[in-house]
Amino acid sequence: MSNLVDLIIKKRDGLALSAAEIQAFITAVTEDTIADYQTSAMLMAMFLQGLTEEETVSLTQAMTHSGTVMDLSSIPGKKADKHSTGGVADTTTLILAPLVASCGVPVFKMSGRGLGFSGGTLDKLESIPGFSTSLSPEQAISLCKESGLVVMGQTKDLTPADQKLYALRDVTGTVDSIPLIVSSIMSKKIAAGADAIVLDVKCGSGAFMKDLPSAQTLARQMVQIGRSLGRRVSAVISSMAQPLGLLIGNALEVEEAISVLKGETEGDLLDVSLELGSRMLLLTDAVSSVEEGKRLLRRQIETGAGLAQLERLIAQQGADISILHHPDRLPKAQSSLAVKAPKSGYLCAMDTASIGHTSVLLGAGRVKKTDAIDYAAGIRMAVRLGDFVEEGQLLGTLYARNDGLCAQGAALFTNAFTFSEEKPTQPPLILDIIEEGTK
Amino acid sequence: MSNLVDLIIKKRDGLALSAAEIQAFITAVTEDTIADYQTSAMLMAMFLQGLTEEETVSLTQAMTHSGTVMDLSSIPGKKADKHSTGGVADTTTLILAPLVASCGVPVFKMSGRGLGFSGGTLDKLESIPGFSTSLSPEQAISLCKESGLVVMGQTKDLTPADQKLYALRDVTGTVDSIPLIVSSIMSKKIAAGADAIVLDVKCGSGAFMKDLPSAQTLARQMVQIGRSLGRRVSAVISSMAQPLGLLIGNALEVEEAISVLKGETEGDLLDVSLELGSRMLLLTDAVSSVEEGKRLLRRQIETGAGLAQLERLIAQQGADISILHHPDRLPKAQSSLAVKAPKSGYLCAMDTASIGHTSVLLGAGRVKKTDAIDYAAGIRMAVRLGDFVEEGQLLGTLYARNDGLCAQGAALFTNAFTFSEEKPTQPPLILDIIEEGTK
Repeated sequence: MSNLVDLIIKKRDGLALSAAEIQAFITAVTEDTIADYQTSAMLMAMFLQGLTEEETVSLTQAMTHSGTVMDLSSIPGKKADKHSTGGVADTTTLILAPLVASCGVPVFKMSGRGLGFSGGTLDKLESIPGFSTSLSPEQAISLCKESGLVVMGQTKDLTPADQKLYALRDVTGTVDSIPLIVSSIMSKKIAAGADAIVLDVKCGSGAFMKDLPSAQTLARQMVQIGRSLGRRVSAVISSMAQPLGLLIGNALEVEEAISVLKGETEGDLLDVSLELGSRMLLLTDAVSSVEEGKRLLRRQIETGAGLAQLERLIAQQGADISILHHPDRLPKAQSSLAVKAPKSGYLCAMDTASIGHTSVLLGAGRVKKTDAIDYAAGIRMAVRLGDFVEEGQLLGTLYARNDGLCAQGAALFTNAFTFSEEKPTQPPLILDIIEEGTK
Repeated sequence: MSNLVDLIIKKRDGLALSAAEIQAFITAVTEDTIADYQTSAMLMAMFLQGLTEEETVSLTQAMTHSGTVMDLSSIPGKKADKHSTGGVADTTTLILAPLVASCGVPVFKMSGRGLGFSGGTLDKLESIPGFSTSLSPEQAISLCKESGLVVMGQTKDLTPADQKLYALRDVTGTVDSIPLIVSSIMSKKIAAGADAIVLDVKCGSGAFMKDLPSAQTLARQMVQIGRSLGRRVSAVISSMAQPLGLLIGNALEVEEAISVLKGETEGDLLDVSLELGSRMLLLTDAVSSVEEGKRLLRRQIETGAGLAQLERLIAQQGADISILHHPDRLPKAQSSLAVKAPKSGYLCAMDTASIGHTSVLLGAGRVKKTDAIDYAAGIRMAVRLGDFVEEGQLLGTLYARNDGLCAQGAALFTNAFTFSEEKPTQPPLILDIIEEGTK
């Protein structure tokens, strides 16, 4: 015990902890031999004094091995995984996972639930009537072997140290620390077992990272840590200056993903999906360039192979495949409200966080982990940054279980838009790409 | 709850908390509506980001009022109190409290127990057979009214917030923070009710503050905070380059205090007692200068008035006054060991902390709060800094309950002395004095 206090003091004084010291801390956290008040003091010391790259590697490694590390070796070939730091209308997994799997690269996806305005792939898939994500690792491996794609919920014995640290960080003001974020994300991804991991680091008003330098630091550290721990990793930094897709909400995002896989919808959501998916192909040696990867993925849309892969996923996990051709069978909201532009002008900025908060308010997201969500609730956006909008023109349609929620949402939603008289310059969609040092 | 997290984040980000925010934090600590892991995160944030003077005042005030504040108004006149940050052979309270009280200034002393090598007045007094410090506030006030002097243990309902914060700081590496130390000490002293408080800030190898600048910062902040909260406060920074007195240990220090009060022993212990005691007289307007105060205190030794006051204290708290004239009736150790100088030379440095640790090892102090102590154990020092010592000359005599402990102590004790060939310059005893701005 006094030994752990010495570790807290060492970090408090700005000294680097050795790998053995970090392992001792994480072992104590995992085995509950350190008191929560000591762990939180260490987290605040780590937050304020920072961690070196070596410390972050040690922390990630210790957290990875604090529980079960998935062994995917029985699934033939190199397995791909993907992680997004969380955004609004960020439906890329539902598009790229079927596309990449349909190219013959197994995608073994352990996903989380949404919290705040960041959606979760599990919630989106569960909006499809019957879809089950409660699979044992054995079931999931077996399904992935058969079909090439599986989406399961995170098991309780995956990175238990991270689960404990995250729960404490959440209530002690120690969330926004790059090394702590890096080790949390990367330990989960490495424990989930894939050979190649593509990271989508969101940046902008609707993302955790508000500015490019922080997003770059986070991305670089995650790529380096992944490489240090023997995985192939690339990161794409993509813009959250506006919602990525047009549809926000669980069933609505499933609807948009199907539309993209059918080749009916193009735009930023598809473009980011291709950026990420092509790198999943590249890092698993399925293609030899990003361009080749993008061409291959587009072909899977044209031939319907991606949609067929999604159909297999839906069927294997017990859900109703008829929604693919009858999206009206997805949950539908009782109430809707069309929100109109209060004045004319070019749309020069969106407060994407406010749009995300609107969707939470409508019922599409959770404030607390234990909140129920309304699969049908959400927003259908009608405008993009740079559009010229006439006063009274539709900005978006809100969906919720009653008119009161729609009316509350409208006030928040309307304020998220900034208009200008001059046509604004279009912000880039892909802000940076952090590749591994070597192919 | 989320409000408290916002406060942690505000302090984490280096912003100053308002008085209302600090009050909310301390109320939550007192009422247990904040989790310990959140309190410790806040303490680490305070440790690393610091507190402004305004924040320290607010924190001290909130902690002072987290429990009972003693009302001493029924005791006529201005009441004096004194606090030492803790040292070795630091027996000043047993000398100055009777001296000051014998001058007609009521001394209402709430004392603590020793921890580590810092002795505690309660333990020292309790080494006198029969001495009781378990007094209710009403009993203590009544005794002080009668005799002018009382020494009681800290009650449970005095500054409960400080008690909780200190217990957490002790196990989370957040002890050594000047604003946290200041607010802890000053909230207890202010809640203890005296009008005038004289602080003895120890500095050197056997003290919490190792260097003069930190001691000065601590002293200045305590004086300022006390003044801001309506008390008269002065601080004396005194040297802990060597044990202050010659006798270390509970009964041994009682023996030395009696000897000083009898006028049989002079030296650093008396000098520091006079520095502190004269300022207690000055701040309660009993004298108009420090010099007058010192003269008056010396006279109380010469006339025996100080010793008579100690006799009244011992009698009123149920103990055996015969020890005043028969110090052999104080607890006596079974074993003793004379430690000799391993070589000749000038004594140019003492590792006072090691000497303190020796006394703890011998049984005179506690490592943990719950440890029992041996009242008879300790050290009788035979040398002072600057002395020329011949090889084989006595450095000190160790006392413990058995020869094994004495032998163990000797190894540690011998290493505490550094010898030089040249006569070292004598370090000053009083390093600085921080007075109030106005008399």
